[in-house]
Amino acid sequence: MKRRILVIGIGAGNPDYVTIQAVDALNRVNVFFIPDKGIEKDGLARVRREICERFIRDQSYRTVAFEVPRRRPAAEDYGTAVADWHDAVEGVYQQLLMEELEEDECGAFLVWGDPTLYDSTLRILDRLQAKGGFELEYDVIPGITSIQALAARHKVTLNRIGQSIAITTGRKLAEGFPNNADSVVVMLDGEGAFAGLDGDLDIWWGAYVGTPDEILVSGKLREVVGDIERIHKQAREQNGWIMDTYLLKQPD
Amino acid sequence: MKRRILVIGIGAGNPDYVTIQAVDALNRVNVFFIPDKGIEKDGLARVRREICERFIRDQSYRTVAFEVPRRRPAAEDYGTAVADWHDAVEGVYQQLLMEELEEDECGAFLVWGDPTLYDSTLRILDRLQAKGGFELEYDVIPGITSIQALAARHKVTLNRIGQSIAITTGRKLAEGFPNNADSVVVMLDGEGAFAGLDGDLDIWWGAYVGTPDEILVSGKLREVVGDIERIHKQAREQNGWIMDTYLLKQPD
Ligand SMILES: C[S@@+](CC[C@H](N)C(=O)[O-])C[C@H]1O[C@@H](n2cnc3c(N)ncnc32)[C@H](O)[C@@H]1O
Ligand SMILES: C[S@@+](CC[C@H](N)C(=O)[O-])C[C@H]1O[C@@H](n2cnc3c(N)ncnc32)[C@H](O)[C@@H]1O
Repeated sequence: MKRRILVIGIGAGNPDYVTIQAVDALNRVNVFFIPDKGIEKDGLARVRREICERFIRDQSYRTVAFEVPRRRPAAEDYGTAVADWHDAVEGVYQQLLMEELEEDECGAFLVWGDPTLYDSTLRILDRLQAKGGFELEYDVIPGITSIQALAARHKVTLNRIGQSIAITTGRKLAEGFPNNADSVVVMLDGEGAFAGLDGDLDIWWGAYVGTPDEILVSGKLREVVGDIERIHKQAREQNGWIMDTYLLKQPD
Repeated sequence: MKRRILVIGIGAGNPDYVTIQAVDALNRVNVFFIPDKGIEKDGLARVRREICERFIRDQSYRTVAFEVPRRRPAAEDYGTAVADWHDAVEGVYQQLLMEELEEDECGAFLVWGDPTLYDSTLRILDRLQAKGGFELEYDVIPGITSIQALAARHKVTLNRIGQSIAITTGRKLAEGFPNNADSVVVMLDGEGAFAGLDGDLDIWWGAYVGTPDEILVSGKLREVVGDIERIHKQAREQNGWIMDTYLLKQPD
């Protein structure tokens, strides 16, 4: 028995970010697997629901909510912590595909932003494929990332002329500014790693980009760093969670 | 008199990559400014035309083709060559906005992929705004980049777990592999810079991604480098132009 899965990027924030390809894909799905955890549950569920309601024409689909295993706080070895967590998530996914999907049905995961950027869905499906035991076929539909949403809303080009761009995490940035980097995009930063950097950098910061709660701040890092820290803290307290991304560029 | 412009990302290849936001934007446009140069003319014009025909409901728009000044072959100083070229392009854009757009009309540039990635439209509009002389207001609509199209078609995640991603050009890559880089995406590579790299890297290469001419090759660099070079040469000869992008990752 073969399982067919669509991994659909839904864009990062604004439901209007979905592509025509994603809308077509949504309309081929019988079962949506919906994660039921922290941010996914509180913040992102509204956008997911709106997308399904607005863009699916034939309402004969069902949704299956699933618990995402908790990742234990990564202490020393980030790689191992994530790998253990993937094992647990893999088990959950396998059960979903085996028990919740009928033959000839099409299942789907709706991935925030783009499925190929800091998301583990593809990796988990690859592991299930490699493991064998059942046949699994999947396709990937790209979606607008939070990086593009940020840059579009700030109306700023990611690269300087002919130069390269680094995309990194708050964790990595805290270890040091990427070598020789010209433009740097930072995601997954819980700790405000920008505060420790050269104040001469230009920053374009955004939280909840594309949503009605969007906040944008830009300027010389030294002039706006205090504002961003204050706004970040306030917004997280108010909403219970925050998603923020920022672009840093060397001054011209 | 104020000029209103939309800079609309149309995705990189497949017309189904356009977003709902882009479709809405397309339907607000009175005048499309269409570049009339090399690849833009030969290869990309078909996709642009298809997008306008499929997604614009009310046909009362006009298109204005414009000559894009030629960039002189960048010899030593890449930065200056590009800056000179921007001056020339800026003049052309100013003329378009002054002479081809009526008051209360909305003009648009359709940008291949995403307007914030290796594209000069935003920079030119910013320069026109700074120059003054007329009021200019513009908005940016994100689009699926060739990077996302490549990764989706190969079903590969761009980053390794917790690691960063470098996006660079063939020119930069020829100067050396980015320091400490884990994943590297290479664009604008006319010279096949991958051939000079460590054969132990994994590569995911794609040309004309998302279009009917799409070609995908992946594997250990040392095992596929010859194939890619041969296919690249053949395809460029056959079509008269080529667009290719590739992802390199350090082995696990
Ligand atoms: C696990 S990653 C997933 C990225 C996603 N796949 C994408 O394409 O954007 C989550 C991170 O994305 C960023 N992010 C996602 N949505 C965002 C939004 N609407 N505004 C700002 N940042 C966002 C934040 O940096 C967050 O920590
Ligand atoms: C001037 S850049 C523009 C990038 C565009 N703004 C984007 O978002 O993808 C042109 C480069 O994009 C890449 N590219 C664009 N479309 C592509 C496609 N369909 N397949 C492969 N590479 C593509 C190639 O590396 C090409 O040299």
